[in-house]
Amino acid sequence: MQWTKVLGLGLGAAAFLGLGIILGHFAIPKEASSPAPQDLDLQILETVMGQLNASRIRENLRELSREPHVATSPRDEDLVQLLLQRWRDPESGLDSAEASNYEVLLSFPSQEQPNLVHVVGPTGDIIYSCRQTEENLTGEQGGPDVVQPYAAYAPPGSPQGLLVYANRGSEEDFKELQTQGIKLEGTIALTRYGGVGRGAKAVNAAKHRVAAVLVYTDPADINDGLSSPSETFPNSWYLPPSGVERGSYYEYFGDPLTPYLPAIPSSFRLDLANVSGFPPIPTQPIGFQDARDLLCNLDGTLAPTTWQGALGCSYRLGPGFLPNGDFPADSQVNVSVHNRLELRNSSNVLGIIRGAVEPDRYVLYGNHRDSWVHGAVDPSSGTAVLLELSRVLGTLLKKGTWRPRRSIVFASWGAEEFGLIGSTEFTEEFFNKLQERTVAYINVDISVFANATLRVQGTPPVQSVVFSATKEIRSPGPGNLSIYDNWIRYFNRSSPVYGLVPSLGSLGAGSDYAPFIHFLGISSMDLAYTYDRSKTSARIYPTYHTAFDTFDYVDKFLDPGFGSHQAVAQTAGSVILRLSDSFFLPLNVSDYSETLLSFLQAAQQDLGALLEQHSISLGPLVAAVEKFDAEAAALGERISTLQNGSPDPLQVRMLNDQLMLLERTFLNPRAFPEERYYSHVLWAPRTGSVATFPGLSNACSRARDTAPGSEAWAEVQRQISIVVMALEGAAATLRPVADL
Amino acid sequence: MQWTKVLGLGLGAAAFLGLGIILGHFAIPKEASSPAPQDLDLQILETVMGQLNASRIRENLRELSREPHVATSPRDEDLVQLLLQRWRDPESGLDSAEASNYEVLLSFPSQEQPNLVHVVGPTGDIIYSCRQTEENLTGEQGGPDVVQPYAAYAPPGSPQGLLVYANRGSEEDFKELQTQGIKLEGTIALTRYGGVGRGAKAVNAAKHRVAAVLVYTDPADINDGLSSPSETFPNSWYLPPSGVERGSYYEYFGDPLTPYLPAIPSSFRLDLANVSGFPPIPTQPIGFQDARDLLCNLDGTLAPTTWQGALGCSYRLGPGFLPNGDFPADSQVNVSVHNRLELRNSSNVLGIIRGAVEPDRYVLYGNHRDSWVHGAVDPSSGTAVLLELSRVLGTLLKKGTWRPRRSIVFASWGAEEFGLIGSTEFTEEFFNKLQERTVAYINVDISVFANATLRVQGTPPVQSVVFSATKEIRSPGPGNLSIYDNWIRYFNRSSPVYGLVPSLGSLGAGSDYAPFIHFLGISSMDLAYTYDRSKTSARIYPTYHTAFDTFDYVDKFLDPGFGSHQAVAQTAGSVILRLSDSFFLPLNVSDYSETLLSFLQAAQQDLGALLEQHSISLGPLVAAVEKFDAEAAALGERISTLQNGSPDPLQVRMLNDQLMLLERTFLNPRAFPEERYYSHVLWAPRTGSVATFPGLSNACSRARDTAPGSEAWAEVQRQISIVVMALEGAAATLRPVADL
Repeated sequence: MQWTKVLGLGLGAAAFLGLGIILGHFAIPKEASSPAPQDLDLQILETVMGQLNASRIRENLRELSREPHVATSPRDEDLVQLLLQRWRDPESGLDSAEASNYEVLLSFPSQEQPNLVHVVGPTGDIIYSCRQTEENLTGEQGGPDVVQPYAAYAPPGSPQGLLVYANRGSEEDFKELQTQGIKLEGTIALTRYGGVGRGAKAVNAAKHRVAAVLVYTDPADINDGLSSPSETFPNSWYLPPSGVERGSYYEYFGDPLTPYLPAIPSSFRLDLANVSGFPPIPTQPIGFQDARDLLCNLDGTLAPTTWQGALGCSYRLGPGFLPNGDFPADSQVNVSVHNRLELRNSSNVLGIIRGAVEPDRYVLYGNHRDSWVHGAVDPSSGTAVLLELSRVLGTLLKKGTWRPRRSIVFASWGAEEFGLIGSTEFTEEFFNKLQERTVAYINVDISVFANATLRVQGTPPVQSVVFSATKEIRSPGPGNLSIYDNWIRYFNRSSPVYGLVPSLGSLGAGSDYAPFIHFLGISSMDLAYTYDRSKTSARIYPTYHTAFDTFDYVDKFLDPGFGSHQAVAQTAGSVILRLSDSFFLPLNVSDYSETLLSFLQAAQQDLGALLEQHSISLGPLVAAVEKFDAEAAALGERISTLQNGSPDPLQVRMLNDQLMLLERTFLNPRAFPEERYYSHVLWAPRTGSVATFPGLSNACSRARDTAPGSEAWAEVQRQISIVVMALEGAAATLRPVADL
Repeated sequence: MQWTKVLGLGLGAAAFLGLGIILGHFAIPKEASSPAPQDLDLQILETVMGQLNASRIRENLRELSREPHVATSPRDEDLVQLLLQRWRDPESGLDSAEASNYEVLLSFPSQEQPNLVHVVGPTGDIIYSCRQTEENLTGEQGGPDVVQPYAAYAPPGSPQGLLVYANRGSEEDFKELQTQGIKLEGTIALTRYGGVGRGAKAVNAAKHRVAAVLVYTDPADINDGLSSPSETFPNSWYLPPSGVERGSYYEYFGDPLTPYLPAIPSSFRLDLANVSGFPPIPTQPIGFQDARDLLCNLDGTLAPTTWQGALGCSYRLGPGFLPNGDFPADSQVNVSVHNRLELRNSSNVLGIIRGAVEPDRYVLYGNHRDSWVHGAVDPSSGTAVLLELSRVLGTLLKKGTWRPRRSIVFASWGAEEFGLIGSTEFTEEFFNKLQERTVAYINVDISVFANATLRVQGTPPVQSVVFSATKEIRSPGPGNLSIYDNWIRYFNRSSPVYGLVPSLGSLGAGSDYAPFIHFLGISSMDLAYTYDRSKTSARIYPTYHTAFDTFDYVDKFLDPGFGSHQAVAQTAGSVILRLSDSFFLPLNVSDYSETLLSFLQAAQQDLGALLEQHSISLGPLVAAVEKFDAEAAALGERISTLQNGSPDPLQVRMLNDQLMLLERTFLNPRAFPEERYYSHVLWAPRTGSVATFPGLSNACSRARDTAPGSEAWAEVQRQISIVVMALEGAAATLRPVADL
């Protein structure tokens, strides 16, 4: 070749090489060095929704509720093993699973000396005895593993006295009896469930020197008035006459001997003499069959209309029995309680799916494992869902199809029935770590109370993720509604921002979410399917905490076909995936503004004049709510801008931290020194009647009748300042991070 | 051309193009899409070190100390403006700077009615009067802005009684007087500074019904025994005879009316009657010239040897004066205090350099601004350094040369002298946000006590960053040592891990770091240059809190040439840059192991036998310390592995969060309910004699003389559990993040 040709070819080659280099460098995205950030995968979501299987939930429930499994019983420990086995399954398990133990103080009736309730005649002979156990209607109410109905933590004792009827055992109820001139000292007070907490009945009674308390479930409150055997289980979902609600009568939650410390073996334990919150006097629950025999024979004044129930007689106040009734007029009632406190090892089981990108961010999902008897509804309906969810997610994980962006932690809590003990001890043990890293806590305890509609309790930031999830899932039952569209028919409110939306309830302390929201300040929710309130006024599903809460009860009456269980599993599953996989956390913090505004308006309307009389201004509170609102809105705009760009993962992490940690800014461990664990300035228990910030509401209700300038009025001012500080702190957390 | 040739050329071109594409894609790093993460830039570090200028610090100090600037005075507010102007300077300022106000309760002497101390003869005539002001030796001790020496927060009153000498006013000192048979009721107690806190002297005295307390500085404690005018300032650095140490006598810190609430105008304020921590009886400080006249005329028993000082006479205990002395034997001392409590607006000034990559991580650097008089040393020597540092960093920032990875926050606190008020209110206002985001707090209050050596107080994780910094900076003064090598000559210890290293002191509550470490649990440090202890035994620099703490005092005696100021500026600057710019946070959490082990060994050696007698095991504590140690070591290895790879920024962020948040895991707001703000389980005040965990040490010292099974012994067990829980929580935080 000619040298010019060679040169030409060389130059040409060089040009092509150069062009290639340029193209290769600039035109082809480098996948390895800047992959698209992992985000919620709708395909995966759809797969999960499709695989959550009603029949499998049903099978889970059958196994879980096969035997009674009260906390720390051998069957409870068997279920620990079952959970570990499922979560360690090589085909469908999680990355790891462990059981952890706490040594906690529980209370049990004596096997040798059952608790007894007798009517004792004037000569000391036993005229009548209440049932010691429930009637064995389905073959499942007998056997040594069915724990006798009792009031956990009620002290032993055998007081005897005249019977009185004290309605629900509230403070007002006992005052009413006093007003009626009834001498309460030494009496036995018969009360019905509802109105106030279990333990409060005994506390209120003891203030009037009542000797013991009996508690029963009135058919008016639980059975829509029905009470005959033919109208009740196993012929309907209603409570049979011998059914007795068990329960913890402890006032607080967590292990009673180790407040604020995890109940590991080495931890300091209070001397029993220093434990507060146990019922002060012997207490025993009975069935309405026995209650009828006692109550319908009572002498004395006719009880007020609101005190009447559905036992088929007029309720009188006592004391003592009618002259012409079933018992001699001067018969007394003897209550023998032989409960024993025992230190027992209770297990939590924790399983984890490690996050692929942000393993230090936890989406926690849990339920308790322990029941009172078979506990098919409470808690196994939730555990059956938990196991199905972990199976479906675990299978995708083990197949290598999916790993979430953030970690998912599954929890099976122990000893919840005794006072949220397993979950509380867990939060005590890992306080800082959980507070710093937990995105949200999702609780599904009883997953299905009834099959009418979803019911959600939660803090405002979780509203949006639940809405997104439920709009995409078909509701069980007739029609072709989404869970969301069905839900809005039963529970709704008019939101100033969104118009008509389903309404979320607020979180009390009814299940294991309590330590997460109140003690740790973690955004939490509780999910369940529940009643059509137009069809029943039952306080709760009728066999709650009785030996009649069995698999067949669920299968036949609560959720035949398990469609509602599946709906809850799908809702929880979608919420978990959205929280663990979304690049931007789907927590809408600006939804807190509506709550704050409603609290503020209640304060202005219902307390404004009173406060003004005492020269206390709500101005700073108004300003703080406005500031929060403005910062939340501004943050929302910054999120939109960022979502429309291509933000780097660190930027989004910083933003997500603001969202995750907002709930923490409402925590103040010094706000309510007398309330154990309750530190959340917005959701602490409210005893005052005004639906505003709980500290303000309660302080006002205490101050109302005190003199101007009293300590109680100073506390009102302190509570306003605490809320202002929390709101200012919240606003500061939402501001652009480099603005102080 | 032939078609084969064309084909050949085409194929050749395609091959070159292809090769080019491959080379371009794989061989050339894409800078735009995956830049190297921003890390500490040694060039920038060197530039900063080189630009920190001693003369400029000197000029800053001259300006800052030109006039007295007690908290909230007009000159204090002028300095707020000076700071704002510097930090907003377009050439050398920060990104932004703001002043913020708190309305706080301060205490001042009355301008109209100065505090007075008289000797009153038997007939009521005034025989002798202590000086009301310090002698005007340099022309700077006069004028209306020099606040009269006083004991801030001491109550007004004019008690009169016989004088006694009570040494340092400790509990033991007053017990000794009692043992000596001296009737203390109604007496005036003359005490000397040192031994116990200021306020404690009055508290202890009041328990014995002493009527008032006088406090002076003994030349033995401050002047190496020298006391004549010719031997003292302005002829040397020693305290002149008329010099009086002012100070806050308030027991706690923070605004007294708003504990745990920011002192914003709307905040709830305690009724004065409910404020605790003020001295219970009138108290007044005096100079040693006046103290000599009183003390050398005292009657009574000779005071114990350890009570003797350097006033040139034998100290006697009193009560009352010698028969043949300067005053009639039955003369009394009258102390008239007219201090007034006043609500005043005090400002913090905050300036920020926004982080480029992680703006939500804050490196906080601060000092107070308020002085007692001119405050050249305290605090202006620190503020002079602060301003030079912000100038150098601000200049690089404004030039566009540099922006730190994380945000840097500069703070000028108000009203520190009254009890760390500005910094405490700031931590109350932004509690959650600061806790979640602050990497470390660096305090430089008095930057130069003397020019011998660096002195650092801090928590263990900051040791490594201070060591790294000081090894690279030349020490001022003779020789060619690094600051580190000079430091190790004065303060050192033998570390089981590192061998001989400089020793860090622990953080008490002497300056504004206190709320950061004790209340927020943020890793903190305090930096200063200080004495050669072989050359002076002075309790602190002699003109501390007097009107003689002036620019000339610093310029002539403390740090001529300002080399030590520059050394502190360089140390602080290097620490700030390392903390704000390093990709991996330079906090070595495993350095906590040594502290924990030493606390544990002290407990085992000095308390083991006693605890065993009471059946209290240290076993759980041993296990917890071991667990911490193992997890910290394992984390260290994971960091090394990561540092040798090319970790993505999110991975490092997660790791850094573990390091940053470790200190928080030692916080327990319920550990010491009686201690305001102190929540750090390792660094709370220790009153017990055993150098172990403070809660354990204090509880043992209280329990020691009580019966087995007492509440005090239960508290010992509780305190052990609290430490165990904290250590287990710390270990849990250091574990791989997806292990629960």
